Amino acid sequence: MAQGVKRVVLAFSGGLDTSVILKWLQQTYGCEVVTFTADLGQGEELEPARAKAQMMGVKPEHIFIDDLREEFVRDYVFPMMRANALYEGTYLLGTSIARPLIAKRQIEIAKMVGADAVSHGATGKGNDQVRFELGYYALEPDVKVIAPWREWDLTSRTKLIEFAEAHQIPVSKDKRGEAPFSTDANLLHTSSEGKVLEDPWDEVPDYVYSRTNHPEEGPDTPEYITIDFERGDGVALNGEGMSPATLLAKLNDLGKTHGIGRLDLVENRFVGMKSRGMYETPGGTIYHIAHRGIEQLTLDRGAAHLKDELAPRYAELIYNGLWFSPEREMLQAAIDHSQSHVTGTVRLKLYKGNAWVVGRKSPYSLYSEKVVTFEDDAGAYDQKDAEGFIKLNALRLRLLGRRQG
Amino acid sequence: MAQGVKRVVLAFSGGLDTSVILKWLQQTYGCEVVTFTADLGQGEELEPARAKAQMMGVKPEHIFIDDLREEFVRDYVFPMMRANALYEGTYLLGTSIARPLIAKRQIEIAKMVGADAVSHGATGKGNDQVRFELGYYALEPDVKVIAPWREWDLTSRTKLIEFAEAHQIPVSKDKRGEAPFSTDANLLHTSSEGKVLEDPWDEVPDYVYSRTNHPEEGPDTPEYITIDFERGDGVALNGEGMSPATLLAKLNDLGKTHGIGRLDLVENRFVGMKSRGMYETPGGTIYHIAHRGIEQLTLDRGAAHLKDELAPRYAELIYNGLWFSPEREMLQAAIDHSQSHVTGTVRLKLYKGNAWVVGRKSPYSLYSEKVVTFEDDAGAYDQKDAEGFIKLNALRLRLLGRRQG
Amino acid sequence: MAQGVKRVVLAFSGGLDTSVILKWLQQTYGCEVVTFTADLGQGEELEPARAKAQMMGVKPEHIFIDDLREEFVRDYVFPMMRANALYEGTYLLGTSIARPLIAKRQIEIAKMVGADAVSHGATGKGNDQVRFELGYYALEPDVKVIAPWREWDLTSRTKLIEFAEAHQIPVSKDKRGEAPFSTDANLLHTSSEGKVLEDPWDEVPDYVYSRTNHPEEGPDTPEYITIDFERGDGVALNGEGMSPATLLAKLNDLGKTHGIGRLDLVENRFVGMKSRGMYETPGGTIYHIAHRGIEQLTLDRGAAHLKDELAPRYAELIYNGLWFSPEREMLQAAIDHSQSHVTGTVRLKLYKGNAWVVGRKSPYSLYSEKVVTFEDDAGAYDQKDAEGFIKLNALRLRLLGRRQG
Amino acid sequence: MAQGVKRVVLAFSGGLDTSVILKWLQQTYGCEVVTFTADLGQGEELEPARAKAQMMGVKPEHIFIDDLREEFVRDYVFPMMRANALYEGTYLLGTSIARPLIAKRQIEIAKMVGADAVSHGATGKGNDQVRFELGYYALEPDVKVIAPWREWDLTSRTKLIEFAEAHQIPVSKDKRGEAPFSTDANLLHTSSEGKVLEDPWDEVPDYVYSRTNHPEEGPDTPEYITIDFERGDGVALNGEGMSPATLLAKLNDLGKTHGIGRLDLVENRFVGMKSRGMYETPGGTIYHIAHRGIEQLTLDRGAAHLKDELAPRYAELIYNGLWFSPEREMLQAAIDHSQSHVTGTVRLKLYKGNAWVVGRKSPYSLYSEKVVTFEDDAGAYDQKDAEGFIKLNALRLRLLGRRQG
Repeated sequence: MAQGVKRVVLAFSGGLDTSVILKWLQQTYGCEVVTFTADLGQGEELEPARAKAQMMGVKPEHIFIDDLREEFVRDYVFPMMRANALYEGTYLLGTSIARPLIAKRQIEIAKMVGADAVSHGATGKGNDQVRFELGYYALEPDVKVIAPWREWDLTSRTKLIEFAEAHQIPVSKDKRGEAPFSTDANLLHTSSEGKVLEDPWDEVPDYVYSRTNHPEEGPDTPEYITIDFERGDGVALNGEGMSPATLLAKLNDLGKTHGIGRLDLVENRFVGMKSRGMYETPGGTIYHIAHRGIEQLTLDRGAAHLKDELAPRYAELIYNGLWFSPEREMLQAAIDHSQSHVTGTVRLKLYKGNAWVVGRKSPYSLYSEKVVTFEDDAGAYDQKDAEGFIKLNALRLRLLGRRQG
Repeated sequence: MAQGVKRVVLAFSGGLDTSVILKWLQQTYGCEVVTFTADLGQGEELEPARAKAQMMGVKPEHIFIDDLREEFVRDYVFPMMRANALYEGTYLLGTSIARPLIAKRQIEIAKMVGADAVSHGATGKGNDQVRFELGYYALEPDVKVIAPWREWDLTSRTKLIEFAEAHQIPVSKDKRGEAPFSTDANLLHTSSEGKVLEDPWDEVPDYVYSRTNHPEEGPDTPEYITIDFERGDGVALNGEGMSPATLLAKLNDLGKTHGIGRLDLVENRFVGMKSRGMYETPGGTIYHIAHRGIEQLTLDRGAAHLKDELAPRYAELIYNGLWFSPEREMLQAAIDHSQSHVTGTVRLKLYKGNAWVVGRKSPYSLYSEKVVTFEDDAGAYDQKDAEGFIKLNALRLRLLGRRQG
Repeated sequence: MAQGVKRVVLAFSGGLDTSVILKWLQQTYGCEVVTFTADLGQGEELEPARAKAQMMGVKPEHIFIDDLREEFVRDYVFPMMRANALYEGTYLLGTSIARPLIAKRQIEIAKMVGADAVSHGATGKGNDQVRFELGYYALEPDVKVIAPWREWDLTSRTKLIEFAEAHQIPVSKDKRGEAPFSTDANLLHTSSEGKVLEDPWDEVPDYVYSRTNHPEEGPDTPEYITIDFERGDGVALNGEGMSPATLLAKLNDLGKTHGIGRLDLVENRFVGMKSRGMYETPGGTIYHIAHRGIEQLTLDRGAAHLKDELAPRYAELIYNGLWFSPEREMLQAAIDHSQSHVTGTVRLKLYKGNAWVVGRKSPYSLYSEKVVTFEDDAGAYDQKDAEGFIKLNALRLRLLGRRQG
Repeated sequence: MAQGVKRVVLAFSGGLDTSVILKWLQQTYGCEVVTFTADLGQGEELEPARAKAQMMGVKPEHIFIDDLREEFVRDYVFPMMRANALYEGTYLLGTSIARPLIAKRQIEIAKMVGADAVSHGATGKGNDQVRFELGYYALEPDVKVIAPWREWDLTSRTKLIEFAEAHQIPVSKDKRGEAPFSTDANLLHTSSEGKVLEDPWDEVPDYVYSRTNHPEEGPDTPEYITIDFERGDGVALNGEGMSPATLLAKLNDLGKTHGIGRLDLVENRFVGMKSRGMYETPGGTIYHIAHRGIEQLTLDRGAAHLKDELAPRYAELIYNGLWFSPEREMLQAAIDHSQSHVTGTVRLKLYKGNAWVVGRKSPYSLYSEKVVTFEDDAGAYDQKDAEGFIKLNALRLRLLGRRQG
């Protein structure tokens, strides 16, 4: 029996895999298991997880089921959205951004219940193991981490189910066969990968989509909405104020209706391989586009361009699981500083897979019709200044040009 | 009379503005004017420009009308697309990328005909004056630049038309009134700005769009296409090989049909103000998305992430008119180096404003189904390696974590 | 007479140039001149400036002489030093960092006295005009800026002196001839440029140095010192606590003695030309080296490397006069965030031009002898982890390697 | 017995450690060992390595002793120096840059002799294991790598010596006791670390320095030298043309004499810990300073600043062992592109630890005395241009300033 662990906090969904892990931890480490189940808006009932944990011998006071939806959106999704972060130019980081919060809460629970270890159900090939564990170690450097998928010998579906049956873990009918792909979901997105998606030349089958309507089936009439922002964060939809999680949920409904936010991507994992995934981020996609829209009007060029240059790095840090790192916090400090006047209203048009910004206004607009106008600007801008501006910008190029030859 | 100019090469469209400039240059500088009219795929007849120039006294051998479409796409658009360049996260730089080529050709003609000056019709508020003139100065440091809009007193439409009439310059009926907006077009895009677009809260009126169908009017059935890339550049559409300009033109047709590539943007000009524009980049949008698609499969992570970090700077350089600068060339050298294996086929689905990558394949794919698979990988990847990987990536965070407090 | 200015705040040193400017402003603009003389540690008597201003008719209540030394070091020099900022890899930005403070104070005075304009004595070829004026405009967008060197016709030394004599401005004997070079000084540095320094192949003559002993004349015995840092800022020398300006002054004495901080540089000005200057930054050089020393011990790698990547940009912003810009503030927010534990003691050895870090210690050290030791580390680090770390870092390179050919 | 290896190429110095490894490989893997000993200018006799290998049963045709000095400097050191690469702001990467060449040669030999494995003597805590192995895997993805220090149980000096004695491996007297620190040397530098250097507060003892005189013992008279550069690389010393390795060797002599190039550093290893080292890079330090000197004159600002921003990343890649990576090659392509006119002569003054640039000249100088002069410039630069330049650079700041409040 593996030694040295007394009490372990397991990130527990209540599904087959983490149920097997629960039992395996009890057996292999002879330790007490504490379960933690988070509501991040994945859209599943969580109470069955409680029953299952109890059935497997977890003490009632060691079963934690927390609704983290508001914290998730307010403290993780929105700060990330302030950065306009896109991994590899396109991916809105829906899975990546949820992991640090789960890790943080697990460590908090471990401290509360006096656990000396934590465990998760992520496999040894993916990014999530890295994100969980970097989070754990950053927040509790001496915690013991147990990653069953890297340790055990239940290396096939068959073995897993055999183990489950041997230990009276209920296996629902639809889990007996191989699922044609695997998913992860939270309030920001649903990801799908594996099996039927493994050939990047094959189009994603229709049945894989679970979170958005097919764009072709969206309404034939565009829908117009407004989102209000204050200091970089969304605060209202169509003029009605609402909390971060509520706003994102409403945008998810809109995105679903109009088939917005699908992404078929071949991406580079932190562990060194390429993988192919399909992401559905309905509300997040609309929000991301809207945030850029309000920044266009309210953000100075210097700030905007610096943000654009920092964003790929920032996105990479989150993707790689480095949310709780000094460099992510440094970038966040810079980004947050830029958002003090990112306040105003964006109007969007939603239609069959598209979300277009069609208007934006702000009390803090830096757009000056008086300066930019094609009409007489009454001296707001002296066109003659442009000559000197160009001449001095050209000076080094002219000196270079004279050198050639 | 302004002195010191003997012969000037004017970027001449044949329209009202540059016709007035032609005459004004002859009058003000008492110099010989050489006209240069470029076919960049703007979709206008160019021969009328010849007639007009001749009518205004330009010598036949001093009228240059050049078809630059292939050079434009091959040597400017495609290299830029290799970088996935987007200005301020969204704009495909359709106007910016055309200016250096015009400037280069003007300077070449100036050398051929022994001209000592060049002139253009860009205003004193915009970016184009900068782009033209930085190009001129970089390529011919001692050239004299004449920017009539910054010099003359024809500061209103009325004065301009009066000048035209006083000098027998034909003014077409539709030019008498104020145009409700102004446009620029080439094979890559059409831009519209000014007047009816000046309030960024107002939706762009339907009649402004000239290059794309309204997405709502696109076909109800999606269309699938493939684009083949070789070393980072598109070479074939639906398996049929074609030249760069032909490929872009065909993609424009497709993009037009499906209403793809519209962008309503408030952007930051190099000269320091914000402006609002509407861009239509039908083929370029499809191409950009496809290029990212083939890179996903064929570009190493290190190269891809470095490109993503360099791209905003690269885009800014082009936007600011610094195509002919050492730093743009340095970035190009880095980007081009990365494209040696960006070869393969991308499959896209086009539908009512959307262009989605739905498949990609390549003889140089770095995607390894064997490594990534959820199934047994026969030892292609040892999951136990992940532990050490995480442990050492976590080490600094653990040392940090132990310090706190 | 130039119109439209009622009262102007002049950055006034009391020297010949700004005295001529004072008179010229009175004459040319017929306006009231308010003088502002800052003590930034340049080491000159400031009271003569008062007498001179009074003599030229400036009202006593319009003569401002402020000791800004502590503000200069605390709010400008130290924040910049937190970034380890070096312009073009070597220059500690001694002139650049003083300009925004002068501009800020000028604008404050302008508001106090109800002035509508500000003026400075920087020439039209240099960076300082840009730094002053960008500061003015950022802090008071509608202020009128008068830059006499760009306006007047006193384009030679002779004319300047003639003007002075014609207006009873005293011209000291040593100003009659052409100075062999020009200087700028403050508590951080003295710069010298022009005339005898204009050929970058010629060694800087000995007599140009004013702020440091020749290294050859430094003591033959090295001197050891310690500097204590708290949260990124120096707080004590050899264990004795002192204010920012006092600390820098003491380090200047030490640097002078040992001939530390000379720099002969050909640099790129923001206005587009190269210039050659000689800088003496005795205390600042020691401080910069010491700050890196304490960061080595207390800064996490992620933070340190991010800082290193941001530093050239940050330095460029300061050099270009963009201290009061959103992007400089964003970078500052990131940098300052990193300094929370940059606390401890650095020991340095000073000797004939050199300042070497020879020791550093900190209560917040991240250096772990237990982990790094060549001796048995009792399990603090498991060498086997390195294999997985390398394997996964190598994975993408192996996939690449397999592709070649 | 470990299985599966038939023939292994060992990086073999002939010292105690790699001799033990040789024997251990023969025993543990029952495989044939091929030795490779590189002359990288470390200043040791290499023939004894041959004798030792033969004595331990290595076939004569399997003993490779190669003089790689010119290749090292020409293809690794000089390209790196073109980038002005400094790790963590100060370290010239002397160890890091040698590893990829050794790895490359090992793989070449492995292919020649049909070996299926490679091995090195780097420990499991350091960076060198990463550098060797990333090199191996990049160049031969399927090679088997044996890292004895991570595998065996010879975890103490005593056990190592016991093993040596048990296997008739000669142990020289001075190796019996624990060395007070460990070193690595090549033509670029000598590094020292461990043991007596492990407390970063303790000054490095005098006896640790092996490559440079104490600055205090350098000549009392400064020495002036010139270095000529062509296209970014050094080609001559004091006017005398010489090969890369010869030039670096001569500069090493000069640096040694004058005590130049010592660095006491606490650095961040790729494997996640901080370590303290002492580096002596006499010639490389002079060369680095000289290269910056010639770039000052010949490199355009845009190119120079881009290089400065890329350099920390480039240095990090080399430090981390990613020489053979697409992103290092991309950066190299950009850097090399910038060097086409970095040609000319730098004059330096060497004195007791210092190397100062005191003059530089070039046929491709971009420095224009005519433009920069304080004297009348005859219209080379129009000071009035500066006003427009400043006004347009200020525009966005003014719009910002008007917003505040």
